[in-house]
Amino acid sequence: MDYPQPLVTVDAVLLTLRDGCLQVALHRRPAEPFRDRLALPGGVVHVDQDASVEAAILRVLLDKTGFRPRYIEQLGVFSGPDRDPRSWSVSIAFVALVPEAALTEATEGIFHFHSVDALPALAFDHGTIVAAAVQRLRNKTRYSTLPTQLLPQRFTLSQLQATYEAIVGHPLNKAAFRRKIEEEGVVVATDAYTQGGAHRPAQLYEARPVELFDRTIA
Amino acid sequence: MDYPQPLVTVDAVLLTLRDGCLQVALHRRPAEPFRDRLALPGGVVHVDQDASVEAAILRVLLDKTGFRPRYIEQLGVFSGPDRDPRSWSVSIAFVALVPEAALTEATEGIFHFHSVDALPALAFDHGTIVAAAVQRLRNKTRYSTLPTQLLPQRFTLSQLQATYEAIVGHPLNKAAFRRKIEEEGVVVATDAYTQGGAHRPAQLYEARPVELFDRTIA
Repeated sequence: MDYPQPLVTVDAVLLTLRDGCLQVALHRRPAEPFRDRLALPGGVVHVDQDASVEAAILRVLLDKTGFRPRYIEQLGVFSGPDRDPRSWSVSIAFVALVPEAALTEATEGIFHFHSVDALPALAFDHGTIVAAAVQRLRNKTRYSTLPTQLLPQRFTLSQLQATYEAIVGHPLNKAAFRRKIEEEGVVVATDAYTQGGAHRPAQLYEARPVELFDRTIA
Repeated sequence: MDYPQPLVTVDAVLLTLRDGCLQVALHRRPAEPFRDRLALPGGVVHVDQDASVEAAILRVLLDKTGFRPRYIEQLGVFSGPDRDPRSWSVSIAFVALVPEAALTEATEGIFHFHSVDALPALAFDHGTIVAAAVQRLRNKTRYSTLPTQLLPQRFTLSQLQATYEAIVGHPLNKAAFRRKIEEEGVVVATDAYTQGGAHRPAQLYEARPVELFDRTIA
């Protein structure tokens, strides 16, 4: 090409619920720039290997952290001359909601978890990227199926409501919540019910299925 | 950098209502690749000039079409080795809803309008990008303020409903529509009413204000 091109990277905001609050999985950068600083897992697109930026983020996550998401979506593009000391750069950021247990597939000890509301200083503009992911998530919990990604395959409506409440950070009215969930078609009822326990059996639900990369959910 | 980098372009899907249906503003490419083919207006990011990909799309639109949007948002990233014959490439696509009258700011005759449901073959993967924009828009009309961008500054709820109906392509129930609009806080009531005409005066509304680039609306 006639023009010098930006450096193109992909970065992932992996969000999970730990200890009842929304946390992000960070790793400590092993190399410059920002060596030893906490950062989002990410890397440079390799045009000789990657079929797309989606393929790039899956490769980078697997190589650097051992983690393979079940679902991940584009968050947005962060760009400019000053965000990376190496070059004018573009970060194509992705966001995924991951059950805490699924992160055990990752390389042991690779992730450092921090509450999204109390982040340390991160490498690059990764603090801004995390904030954008959290804002998207909190906006989307009004109508999206995204929070169901944090639950086991089958769950009760009480579990679903508790998950939404942990994300938005305040209690929700039970009747209004159930009406909304039904109107938006977020979940699908199964024929199964909870077994045992002190309470009467509760009906179990499943998330409506999504593709690994779903552009249209935004 | 050690690695060859992708070609980074920005492209805009400019949607408008013409003759009561949703249309996209295309231009005829003046140069290779895909010379003379209809395409989305767009261009290559210039790292020596552009402060961000947002600045790049505004520069490209103004230079190539004379058009300056009041509102535009990121749609998504389209990427891979085969979509541009020049190189492995990334298109950072934007979408805007533009009142037809605003496109008169553009260079005369630069835009060719086509119904989004009957597109000719476009350059690159621009047909796929338009389809993604339309899907986003049709999903978002359930809850977003985006369709208000197609209206004059003040409008009646009947005008707003007609705009949503043109986008989704079918009639909407009036009572349900008005309840939804109120619940979602899409518009703000003014003290003004329509003047004259055969009908009784109708209250005028305004869109809730948005930033030029609003990541959080997605």
